[in-house]
Amino acid sequence: MQSDFLFAKPFKAVFPYPTRTPWVRAMPFVVMITGIPGVGKSTITRLALKRTRAKFRLVNFGDLMFEEAVKAGLVKHRDEMRKLDPKTQRELQLKAAQKIVEIAREEPVLLDTHATIKTPVGYLLGFPREVIEVINPNFIVIIEATPSEILGRRLRDLKRDRDVETEEQIERHQDLNRAAAISYAMHSNALVKIIENHEDKGLEEAVNELVQVLDLAVSEYD
Amino acid sequence: MQSDFLFAKPFKAVFPYPTRTPWVRAMPFVVMITGIPGVGKSTITRLALKRTRAKFRLVNFGDLMFEEAVKAGLVKHRDEMRKLDPKTQRELQLKAAQKIVEIAREEPVLLDTHATIKTPVGYLLGFPREVIEVINPNFIVIIEATPSEILGRRLRDLKRDRDVETEEQIERHQDLNRAAAISYAMHSNALVKIIENHEDKGLEEAVNELVQVLDLAVSEYD
Amino acid sequence: MQSDFLFAKPFKAVFPYPTRTPWVRAMPFVVMITGIPGVGKSTITRLALKRTRAKFRLVNFGDLMFEEAVKAGLVKHRDEMRKLDPKTQRELQLKAAQKIVEIAREEPVLLDTHATIKTPVGYLLGFPREVIEVINPNFIVIIEATPSEILGRRLRDLKRDRDVETEEQIERHQDLNRAAAISYAMHSNALVKIIENHEDKGLEEAVNELVQVLDLAVSEYD
Repeated sequence: MQSDFLFAKPFKAVFPYPTRTPWVRAMPFVVMITGIPGVGKSTITRLALKRTRAKFRLVNFGDLMFEEAVKAGLVKHRDEMRKLDPKTQRELQLKAAQKIVEIAREEPVLLDTHATIKTPVGYLLGFPREVIEVINPNFIVIIEATPSEILGRRLRDLKRDRDVETEEQIERHQDLNRAAAISYAMHSNALVKIIENHEDKGLEEAVNELVQVLDLAVSEYD
Repeated sequence: MQSDFLFAKPFKAVFPYPTRTPWVRAMPFVVMITGIPGVGKSTITRLALKRTRAKFRLVNFGDLMFEEAVKAGLVKHRDEMRKLDPKTQRELQLKAAQKIVEIAREEPVLLDTHATIKTPVGYLLGFPREVIEVINPNFIVIIEATPSEILGRRLRDLKRDRDVETEEQIERHQDLNRAAAISYAMHSNALVKIIENHEDKGLEEAVNELVQVLDLAVSEYD
Repeated sequence: MQSDFLFAKPFKAVFPYPTRTPWVRAMPFVVMITGIPGVGKSTITRLALKRTRAKFRLVNFGDLMFEEAVKAGLVKHRDEMRKLDPKTQRELQLKAAQKIVEIAREEPVLLDTHATIKTPVGYLLGFPREVIEVINPNFIVIIEATPSEILGRRLRDLKRDRDVETEEQIERHQDLNRAAAISYAMHSNALVKIIENHEDKGLEEAVNELVQVLDLAVSEYD
């Protein structure tokens, strides 16, 4: 496997690269974290942020869009956001993206968001081409679990007002998210990191994998 | 899930959006409908067109390319189409795309086509980047069924001269079509709508889902 | 299926196209061959090259990048490659891509490479947008096998220092490679050819499928 030289022993060494960053560009440093409801994204994110050596700013993409909309005098309440026409929404996405780049100049950003958004009339890409090009994330992390694990967690989590999906639909949504992540990587310099959050594997390992990615930011902000 | 604000209760409300349509741009309105042989695309399309409140023009992409080729004096018979060199075919695709945009200025278009085309030497993308950018569809609909359902329908439908594929090959083709749809969405404003046409679920539900998408055109052409 | 006219009987005729090749552009002629470790890519490639009527030059993308790095005085040994910063690596990828186009003007090129590369911190796209646009391959071939077949081959092949993956991880890597191939096709004129290399099917058939693709180059270099 001569062409494997770049990563000769991928899983042997946890991080055998020089401190001044292979495959992570200089600042800004942005990690997008995605995952469908029920994979455990919030829990993993919270635990990883406590443990990472790099001090990350956690930003929610939807919150940022809302802030930009309020600033522009377009809305007062969150509920009004989805009544905005798509052109306006696209502009808000771009403004939020620019804001992220601004923040990331000062400190590493962990961007809590979705790869695709399931709406009643279809899947919407979370990051259209021009938006992902502005953000240019270093990593797109997808938290995944098996459809049956996800379904189980959703059923135990009744207070959150989630729609009931079949395992087939859950699998499909995760498939589409992977394809979306590849498309986003095509329009940025991002690596796609998939973290499995399985019941038997333990949350610990999933958190560690995220910490490993986040810690790559350490050398970037001296 | 603060970032979920855009679609707070995705499956509770069938269509809780203002009439002037978020996420569907102003005219033209184009819905691409795709699906591999045996999923029931023709049947669903025919029934949905009878029921939709918006009066759609059904356009077959291959037909349109053929018409453009005849106009240009390149071919007389359909069989000659595939003997054209790829550069010429690409130009015909672009011409057909421009024609669609023209038609869609007058009335909503339902574009009957394929996400990818299986040829003896590989899968061909139905809509190269520059072609999808011209069409800029509002929706890319994929009709799907399970590989065994598709195989069953193909076997019952012997008069149509179809190649025999394994369930594995059918599954793979559907996988590639989803990835292609995501790539198309990346180069347009389209939402990706996947409609399952399962035996036990009944055709009715599949047709209703398509009608729901098509009816979004109503407010666009006053 | 009127829109099927392009490929009316896809699997009936092995290659019913005019000699001057529809859907393969004029020279240069480049076939990318990819597949994760354990699918049998090296074996199939070696056997196909012996049998094809077109005389192909086998090029390893990693080798080419290394040569360009040596020429530029950046490294002396292969191990130093991965210590280069990402910007430099990207430039080397582009130089290697240009070199391929140069070679392909003289003779057809079979490019041995990876669709995505699994690193400890995520999947890296083998061909970022600007690189695939330069190479503009005619075909992206993916050799595939079932996860259990791949795992079996890896276990029997102990001398090669491979990481141990689960079947789930193998399946996911193949999924991502398909999505990557579709993205590459979106940014080139490539057809995506998936060749299954199953135990029960026999190597012979897989080799034949590759030969069929390679033989399309015959008419291109007269």
